[in-house]
Amino acid sequence: MAGRFISLEGGEGVGKSTQIKRLAEALRARGHEVVETREPGGSPGAEAIRKLLLEGEAERWTAETETLLFAAARADHVARTIRPALARGAWVLTDRFLDSSLAYQGGAGGVGEAAIRQLHAIGSGGLLPDRTLLLRLPAESAAARASTRDGGAGDRIGGRDASYHARVAAAFEALAAQEPERFRPVDASGPAGDVTERILAALADLL
Amino acid sequence: MAGRFISLEGGEGVGKSTQIKRLAEALRARGHEVVETREPGGSPGAEAIRKLLLEGEAERWTAETETLLFAAARADHVARTIRPALARGAWVLTDRFLDSSLAYQGGAGGVGEAAIRQLHAIGSGGLLPDRTLLLRLPAESAAARASTRDGGAGDRIGGRDASYHARVAAAFEALAAQEPERFRPVDASGPAGDVTERILAALADLL
Repeated sequence: MAGRFISLEGGEGVGKSTQIKRLAEALRARGHEVVETREPGGSPGAEAIRKLLLEGEAERWTAETETLLFAAARADHVARTIRPALARGAWVLTDRFLDSSLAYQGGAGGVGEAAIRQLHAIGSGGLLPDRTLLLRLPAESAAARASTRDGGAGDRIGGRDASYHARVAAAFEALAAQEPERFRPVDASGPAGDVTERILAALADLL
Repeated sequence: MAGRFISLEGGEGVGKSTQIKRLAEALRARGHEVVETREPGGSPGAEAIRKLLLEGEAERWTAETETLLFAAARADHVARTIRPALARGAWVLTDRFLDSSLAYQGGAGGVGEAAIRQLHAIGSGGLLPDRTLLLRLPAESAAARASTRDGGAGDRIGGRDASYHARVAAAFEALAAQEPERFRPVDASGPAGDVTERILAALADLL
């Protein structure tokens, strides 16, 4: 059985990590091996780079340096965690992937989308998910969720202002429109179980 | 007075750090502000990335991830240390720069030279030194020097085998041949004072 690579994307507080856990349970119940992972991080080397990215002062890194560090973390994550899991036939569910770099550092951060795609080609052989689920929630609901969870909006990037996060949301929508086959928008409002049902429906052709 | 950007390149143990100190003294005696720096590192952020690069197991990073981390460290070094110093008219002397990535990760490590130059364009605006001094020493002399100094050949990269270091040396020669205006080969054998004189002669048109 071939492995499947699924990314969950969206702004802060839309429920990605909750849905990853629920989706993993549903897939395991169907007999699949599932690897749950996240970015930045997802492998020992990438977790070390994650610390550099999320700790310290807001202006610690320039946009260019930050983008290169994300690409380095992703290259390690792909080489050490994602590709080996796919090679043995597992489903890989990642909380954020390339599209987060495109939306946060590209669309909202001022480093060009073309540059970010070049870095991904160099670092990770241009690997793309089989399906990207874009979780959508009205901005005020997401902000409320993010502010109540542990460490949610407290890191270097989550803590940026509302206009930054609005640009991120617009960038995700533009990416989804560019690649309608890979992306599926998912309404993330309402009970978690309902959202999981919508996610499984958005993966029906891969199951 | 305009700032000048000078890099010293070459394999392990050719005397780059000694010559940076001596060259800085000579330039200060002529009334210049001099910033002595090194790669990977040279700024607080880049020094944090340096630790990731030089510590840990030999196979800790893939060639792609290592190359991205070097580019990230360089972007920080350029933005936080080199460009500000050049803007105020200082001479910047760096122990290694882009050409080390081209020789170590490109020529000897298997990541293409074109990819490394793309990363440099994205991260550091393609900044090149005004002059690059390639210090040359017969391989056996360099190995002897490197093995006797503190921590010299003990890190993840210095500790690689002789054939790797031979490929690095060949890559440096090829780079120097490509850009004869920027590069100056310098015979690094003999007393340190003689080498410094050769270096000053190789910078005469910039002084």
